[in-house]
Amino acid sequence: MARIVMKFGGTSVGDINRIRNVARHVKREVDAGHQVAVVVSAMSGKTNELVGWARELSPLHDAREYDTVVASGEQVTSGLLAIALQSIGVNARSWQGWQIPLKTDASHGAARIADIDGSLLVERFNQGQVAVIAGFQGIAPDNRISTLGRGGSDTSAVAIAAAVKADRCDIYTDVDGVYTTDPRMEPKARRLKKVSFEEMLEMASLGAKVLQVRSVELAMVHKVRTFVRSSFEDPDAPGMGDFDNPPGTLICDEEEIVEQQVVTGIAYAKDEAQISLRRVSDRPGVSAGIFGPLAEANINVDMIVQNISEDGSFTDITFTVPSGDLAKALDVLDKARAAIGFDQIQHDDGMAKVSVIGIGMRSHAGVAATAFKALADKNINIRAITTSEIKISILIDRDYTELAVRTLHAVYGLDKAM
Amino acid sequence: MARIVMKFGGTSVGDINRIRNVARHVKREVDAGHQVAVVVSAMSGKTNELVGWARELSPLHDAREYDTVVASGEQVTSGLLAIALQSIGVNARSWQGWQIPLKTDASHGAARIADIDGSLLVERFNQGQVAVIAGFQGIAPDNRISTLGRGGSDTSAVAIAAAVKADRCDIYTDVDGVYTTDPRMEPKARRLKKVSFEEMLEMASLGAKVLQVRSVELAMVHKVRTFVRSSFEDPDAPGMGDFDNPPGTLICDEEEIVEQQVVTGIAYAKDEAQISLRRVSDRPGVSAGIFGPLAEANINVDMIVQNISEDGSFTDITFTVPSGDLAKALDVLDKARAAIGFDQIQHDDGMAKVSVIGIGMRSHAGVAATAFKALADKNINIRAITTSEIKISILIDRDYTELAVRTLHAVYGLDKAM
Repeated sequence: MARIVMKFGGTSVGDINRIRNVARHVKREVDAGHQVAVVVSAMSGKTNELVGWARELSPLHDAREYDTVVASGEQVTSGLLAIALQSIGVNARSWQGWQIPLKTDASHGAARIADIDGSLLVERFNQGQVAVIAGFQGIAPDNRISTLGRGGSDTSAVAIAAAVKADRCDIYTDVDGVYTTDPRMEPKARRLKKVSFEEMLEMASLGAKVLQVRSVELAMVHKVRTFVRSSFEDPDAPGMGDFDNPPGTLICDEEEIVEQQVVTGIAYAKDEAQISLRRVSDRPGVSAGIFGPLAEANINVDMIVQNISEDGSFTDITFTVPSGDLAKALDVLDKARAAIGFDQIQHDDGMAKVSVIGIGMRSHAGVAATAFKALADKNINIRAITTSEIKISILIDRDYTELAVRTLHAVYGLDKAM
Repeated sequence: MARIVMKFGGTSVGDINRIRNVARHVKREVDAGHQVAVVVSAMSGKTNELVGWARELSPLHDAREYDTVVASGEQVTSGLLAIALQSIGVNARSWQGWQIPLKTDASHGAARIADIDGSLLVERFNQGQVAVIAGFQGIAPDNRISTLGRGGSDTSAVAIAAAVKADRCDIYTDVDGVYTTDPRMEPKARRLKKVSFEEMLEMASLGAKVLQVRSVELAMVHKVRTFVRSSFEDPDAPGMGDFDNPPGTLICDEEEIVEQQVVTGIAYAKDEAQISLRRVSDRPGVSAGIFGPLAEANINVDMIVQNISEDGSFTDITFTVPSGDLAKALDVLDKARAAIGFDQIQHDDGMAKVSVIGIGMRSHAGVAATAFKALADKNINIRAITTSEIKISILIDRDYTELAVRTLHAVYGLDKAM
């Protein structure tokens, strides 16, 4: 007997038949003798409809009311799934955030989880009841409904798994695991059997959409063994209920991964814009003068590269922002021009960022050099580079994204069966 | 300064523009200096969608889960209306049943209100805040969401008006008041200025759809002055904010109605079926033998007429049921035939019930005789009659419904201006 948290996203519960299918996944685990909590998102499209109404009424709406409106989507799914489970003989009940309670801070619209009291859930587990939990929502100190922001249901699931000390948190989604790279970009991409929390965190941050960054952070902190697996497979296909070795990708502590590869995956993000400030006067506080106003305007600055100019008193600063924020960023910088002091501003909206990720880089030299050579051999120009202990990110022209991803995927041997 | 509860039904909040219009109605009362609570239904169509999903998953679904699913509709509207109010400068917040709290009994799906704590609402009124309350829902003793059954938002509104000691409860709907009869049936129908609780109760019970029976009962018990008025008129048209004399129909204590008419209105219900049991042995307990099994099958028996047969040892019993329940009723009676003991069962699905309602009947003789003569003059055959202190109900062939309604409307002078 184990305790499992299962999470199903919007497409997995997108209509009544899919909810029935989810119920069969849950029944499989219950029949195997496990205690189960299920965390559900809103039916796909519902959240967007609700958000659309709130925005139509007022672009600057009260986040507390927004939460009240939007959290209803998960409420509906939780009740429907409980009904579906009962109809196939599984003892189940729905739980809203305020009933558990799942307490958050007061940041309505993007709340952080403060505390989860798992005692009521555990009491019901021991009575053989499945908890069907509305994801994405909690209760704020003002006794009002709060939501966790985009992708919040993943975060709910991992947090609940930590609170009830679950043996595993299964994230069911529309892909069947985490791949060495996006299979739509490189058909030779392979599904990873295991990936470390740190690597997954980089992948999620760097453009892999399979899991939200916050949920991976939380899983890493609380050491929640998290599986990414498909909700669209037949719930009763052979091996689906294999406790030790289910189909999908396990995200776990790196110590669990015996045969660590040097490079685990290639991520990319296509919507990058590059901004360069030429001949910025090189004095203390100049970086704060540039990036302070951008942060205040809620613009996410990513790669930052600074080159010292020939005479040492000026510098060139290059950085990237999401393409959608380019116009706003240029506007902010233009207004701050006098305060910053620079000669010229250049920008290019046609950039992409390709990243090589692997925990093995820590102990292997030459990983970066291999990437640079491989790209050079394909005549792909490198615009900027940033590195961390376990990843290398390279800015290139967007037109070369696919070529770069495939080249890097091949040069590190990721297309070969392990 | 007064305290007003305003209730808006599903068609009144059916889309974003209508929600904006409702906000203008509320703002008018706030600008006039009143303290306001608004009770809202789900956007029209939403409840049916949610109910449809629950039924599709399981015809015999858990009423607690059904409540969780269905109550989300009112939750959405409450948040959206709060946003709409804030966007036009009105201080407002949404309230769910569990936040007030509006406590109900444990009868999920058709709960009765047990207790409303109005103190938090009153505290906010005194701070100048409008309460936007999700109708139809409360919280049951198990800390789970409950719903009040069909038309529950009217009941919520009246109950909240009683709890916060409101001066008035305005029910905004898609008609502009209570009429002497259905204007689609008789174009000469006139809007009533005032109608007593007792009369409204009869009208609602007898087929007038404008208000739910339960809400009228509650208004009568707590003496809540209730206005029925239109949500589709221009919120700022002249007279709309007239506190003493707003457009619409006031439902109030009969003592408030100085010039009481003998007959106030004509109601009808077209979906009646008649069942007659011939030569039932006339012994104690035979009525219980007939109506007990029908009640257990949840069939609402309405008019009951019993005639003593010629020799005194047998009797004929005639009664009506809703047309939709006829087949089920016949089935129940057939199974109980031996226990009841009757010769023959006859039925006719083509019946209608026409009712004459008026508190003045109490002190006026001959009201019934006038009806019978008027119908006889038009060759309308009377199948059954039941009377109460303030109403006469007459069962006729459905084909004559319109003629009977118009005839009775005229004979009591209801088509003449008062």
